[in-house]
Amino acid sequence: MRDLLALVDRPEVISFAGGLPAPELFDVDGWRAAFDAALTGPAARRHLQYAATEGDLRLRGHLAARMTAWGLPSQAGDVLVTTGSQQGLTLVAAALLEPGATVVVEEPTYLAALQCFGMAGARVVAVASDADGVDPDALAEVFARERPALLYLVPTFANPTGKTLSARRRERVAELAERYGVWIVEDDPYGELRYRGDALAPVASYGERVVFLGSLSKIGAPGLRLGWVRTPSALRAALVIAKQAADLHTSTIDQAAAAHYLAVADLDGHVARLRVAYRERRDTMLGLLPQVLPAGATWTDPDGGMFVWVRLPGEVDTAAVLPVALAHDVAFVPGAPFFAVRADRATLRLSFSSSTPERIVEGMRRLGVALGSGSSALPSTALPTALPTVLSAGNRT
Amino acid sequence: MRDLLALVDRPEVISFAGGLPAPELFDVDGWRAAFDAALTGPAARRHLQYAATEGDLRLRGHLAARMTAWGLPSQAGDVLVTTGSQQGLTLVAAALLEPGATVVVEEPTYLAALQCFGMAGARVVAVASDADGVDPDALAEVFARERPALLYLVPTFANPTGKTLSARRRERVAELAERYGVWIVEDDPYGELRYRGDALAPVASYGERVVFLGSLSKIGAPGLRLGWVRTPSALRAALVIAKQAADLHTSTIDQAAAAHYLAVADLDGHVARLRVAYRERRDTMLGLLPQVLPAGATWTDPDGGMFVWVRLPGEVDTAAVLPVALAHDVAFVPGAPFFAVRADRATLRLSFSSSTPERIVEGMRRLGVALGSGSSALPSTALPTALPTVLSAGNRT
Repeated sequence: MRDLLALVDRPEVISFAGGLPAPELFDVDGWRAAFDAALTGPAARRHLQYAATEGDLRLRGHLAARMTAWGLPSQAGDVLVTTGSQQGLTLVAAALLEPGATVVVEEPTYLAALQCFGMAGARVVAVASDADGVDPDALAEVFARERPALLYLVPTFANPTGKTLSARRRERVAELAERYGVWIVEDDPYGELRYRGDALAPVASYGERVVFLGSLSKIGAPGLRLGWVRTPSALRAALVIAKQAADLHTSTIDQAAAAHYLAVADLDGHVARLRVAYRERRDTMLGLLPQVLPAGATWTDPDGGMFVWVRLPGEVDTAAVLPVALAHDVAFVPGAPFFAVRADRATLRLSFSSSTPERIVEGMRRLGVALGSGSSALPSTALPTALPTVLSAGNRT
Repeated sequence: MRDLLALVDRPEVISFAGGLPAPELFDVDGWRAAFDAALTGPAARRHLQYAATEGDLRLRGHLAARMTAWGLPSQAGDVLVTTGSQQGLTLVAAALLEPGATVVVEEPTYLAALQCFGMAGARVVAVASDADGVDPDALAEVFARERPALLYLVPTFANPTGKTLSARRRERVAELAERYGVWIVEDDPYGELRYRGDALAPVASYGERVVFLGSLSKIGAPGLRLGWVRTPSALRAALVIAKQAADLHTSTIDQAAAAHYLAVADLDGHVARLRVAYRERRDTMLGLLPQVLPAGATWTDPDGGMFVWVRLPGEVDTAAVLPVALAHDVAFVPGAPFFAVRADRATLRLSFSSSTPERIVEGMRRLGVALGSGSSALPSTALPTALPTVLSAGNRT
């Protein structure tokens, strides 16, 4: 296990495993100026001090304005700043889930969400979905039968599949949540990274029973650990109490720097540049998959985000393929841990965001060699299922 | 309630309520230089990226060296960086407490710890203590009777009492934990703020069953939210998993800035200056208490830290005194919420750290007027017990 980890960390490995933004695209100068501004002048001491649990009021205002521009009218008072949107998930679990509560998820879904619900003692139930995301008819049936506490969705450029819930289904899903008294957690770290088609309004714009989780990690910089929860008023007090117990508040200085950055930097222009770069990477990867993958493989064609989801043909276990890939200096995440109930072990996730097109070409070549080494060379014993979690530790997989 | 909060936030109020470090003593220039260095050069992009859950290896090395200097031999690999030591508490609760587990605490104790254990579904049991801290004989009895999962202590300059566990008792408490198979959580945010006497080695130096929680909030700056857990190897994996679910990792840039700061700044010299300033504030407050408090009042005489714990004579409820104090533009924290089992409502906590000696003199004068308004003027109805928590929201009370 440790040996495998060491293999992934070797610089010669081209990794499609993590869900990392491209570091060469970070606005380093903008962030350095923002921290400098936050630590200059009379407000500097305030930015080093304890602060309100809810977050920096200027930052909350900028984030509310951003959500409003996405079609989700919001005010600063609706925003609870979190230490990354991962923390938002944990706070929602703390505030909404009693041990034994039922959580409904798409399958596959974000594996750290599954871990989070598992740690909260919840029972996880899967609902059917197709290329347009979760199936509303199946969802109605699950809601009626299971009486869940919450439904967790990554409705836009989902992790791990890259799929997007259609506008019509967003409306229906929000209606079902109202009708059955279920809370929806709309996890949206990727929404601004759209490479094709028109933006869709968040599910939260269709109803009141939606907790929207946002993040600056993919459009700003993940190292600052800045996310937010748009809190329905009925949940606000419980979420603030959970946040206070979790870490009192998010880094004052990081919040102040982000507030400054959002005030003075051209974030929309930066996001536009990210879209151009990531679109090229997605297209490079998708263009090579027909040559690289064995006949009968299928994959998603995401409109945005960071991920392509692949299914290999036959009875292969991708956890057993990973060591072979690593031997060829290329990495991916085996798919099984993304499943809550019944794992499809022939699946795997590829991330195209953190590799340049040149590296993607070379990485795809290596993956082709690894997969082309023949099914007889692929060992059938699965690695421990904890492996992919650890492989992707420290990033939002 | 909201009106009361507004009263505390008024700038004319002299607050002895929060557990805030003095902002005028922050090393603003040192921190600005540290952030600038962290965002300059080839490492800058790494400092904006996702990072390992365990924390920045350089920072972990500095923190381990610091603990070693305190008499607690440590290595970087023993350190898990947390988003403030408040998060360390929550991680320990997540890793060690099943619902219904028993936690032993001194009474009174840090109220956010009580909230944290309550949110984890634990049953809290109090153990007797005196001026030297927790009573080992009483502790042995409680351990034998209750078979608790953990013992929570702030053994050095405790919050809220300012009391310190004697060296001899540290050894005995650690032995008892080994004998009964109980984990000790040694919460030590104040240990370096000693104004009298010699430093004591941490409880963790006396045995293996101690989880030590450290913090840069009081000696560096709380706005960075940087704390750490010194993890016994038996708990390391569970704590890292809990940390990953909580927020993936602590701010990369804040950690990098702190690593730079600890490498180049004279933190020991800074702490020495803090000690001089805080000692004067403590002495100013203690010198005035005999004039300010009614006859029969008692209070602690802390060797360090930030707090003096007061008991008023008679049947007074300090939660009912607070509005009177606020009417005189002075604030404190009523004592009841610091008790886990049986509240002594005649108690209150005063913090001397964040007010200059001049402000302490004036604040003490106002407190004297408020208390001297006569016991007949003090309403006997208690405010909701949640009040002090909210009053002190956003700081480590």
